[in-house]
Amino acid sequence: MTYCVGFLVRAGLVMMADTRTNAGVDNVSTYRKLRLHGNDGTRLIVTASAGSLSTTQDAVQRLQQGVPNPETGALDSFETVTSIYDAALAAGRAIRAARDGMDSLQQGQISFDATLLVGGSVGGEPLRLFLVYPAGNCIECGPDTPYLQIGENKYGKPILDRALDYDTDLYDAVKIGLISFSSTMRSNLAVGLPIDLVTARQGQSEAEVVRRIETNDGYFAELSRRWSEVINEACRAVPKVPFEPAG
Amino acid sequence: MTYCVGFLVRAGLVMMADTRTNAGVDNVSTYRKLRLHGNDGTRLIVTASAGSLSTTQDAVQRLQQGVPNPETGALDSFETVTSIYDAALAAGRAIRAARDGMDSLQQGQISFDATLLVGGSVGGEPLRLFLVYPAGNCIECGPDTPYLQIGENKYGKPILDRALDYDTDLYDAVKIGLISFSSTMRSNLAVGLPIDLVTARQGQSEAEVVRRIETNDGYFAELSRRWSEVINEACRAVPKVPFEPAG
Repeated sequence: MTYCVGFLVRAGLVMMADTRTNAGVDNVSTYRKLRLHGNDGTRLIVTASAGSLSTTQDAVQRLQQGVPNPETGALDSFETVTSIYDAALAAGRAIRAARDGMDSLQQGQISFDATLLVGGSVGGEPLRLFLVYPAGNCIECGPDTPYLQIGENKYGKPILDRALDYDTDLYDAVKIGLISFSSTMRSNLAVGLPIDLVTARQGQSEAEVVRRIETNDGYFAELSRRWSEVINEACRAVPKVPFEPAG
Repeated sequence: MTYCVGFLVRAGLVMMADTRTNAGVDNVSTYRKLRLHGNDGTRLIVTASAGSLSTTQDAVQRLQQGVPNPETGALDSFETVTSIYDAALAAGRAIRAARDGMDSLQQGQISFDATLLVGGSVGGEPLRLFLVYPAGNCIECGPDTPYLQIGENKYGKPILDRALDYDTDLYDAVKIGLISFSSTMRSNLAVGLPIDLVTARQGQSEAEVVRRIETNDGYFAELSRRWSEVINEACRAVPKVPFEPAG
């Protein structure tokens, strides 16, 4: 499994992904799922992927070679698209083509589905963030719910629903994202360190921070420890149930 | 969907279940999923159910009429079993028989699976808690992880992993359970009030509290509001990320 999350807050974009890939529980590997394209001040395209690793890798190959755009007849790649929306559409065509190509391999219950987050800015446009579904269609992140998740998303969702809004500071959003990862990793073995993360300020087509939180990261260990502590304090701060029998 | 949770802590047993049943998002109803049997001082059997409502209701019927026990030839019901383990085994045979009976109806992707929690005490034995799988087998709750969940379990799991242990006070456990429900309901429409709950003290074969948290429950509303507040305070209490660029 995998967990990836993207935030689009007023201040900018945050994208984070773990690196654990597993087939069962005894075939566990580390693969980069967060990819950075351009990052030259005029083109920033960040992708995060969840689902079938073979489909994702196939889609990445297709995007490097260029994916046919049925409306223009051109080959679209992350080097040629002129907007982040076109990048999301090209990524959608790529994962759809990759998955369709695997249909002949279909057997049993194996799923070749893959899902992507695509965020960034091309040519000075405002930062945008999209979730690309296995069918190739996509949805855009908006201010009312300023996050999108893919992969093992449920354990880490409650903290986002309570703590994140469009006006959250960019690095407070990173902290909330790391808490969301910590909650997920505590409850599910299939999500694990290292975590890759990218931030970008609104108005920039270039990343501000590109960082890998390694397995032995002292801050992340302290964040997880402190989060357990404050969650227990928070439980104590909630009033007792009013129906405990006396005595 | 549904969310049910059971705790077996040193002090006793807590079982909680929401009451929302849905087929899609526009066919939503309220059904009791927490059921109390006996509760006479010598026999306390509490069940909570998730999954196909038709399978659950079929299994309940079978348990009332008595389910054939292939090892003794007798008909086992919750009125006749002599231990809570036998109650879990009988419940397993009932849901397996109910589901098998529906195999002929199978079409498309509809699942007739149902899962149960079975907890309590018969004849003065220590309180025990079991999770009964759709196949009819079961697992028992133990002190290392003093909870079992069924249904929409992921949103509400992180708080249990951080805040609950075997020595948690019985009504603090109830409070943590309600926070777990609040987190789930905030993130998923398919789980909703009212919530039914039962508590029992270790050494008793009788419930201590049997209560329904209604839609307009003031304490639950305050708990949810306060939890949002303290979660935001908790986020602020965690140190800032150490890699925010200066300026």
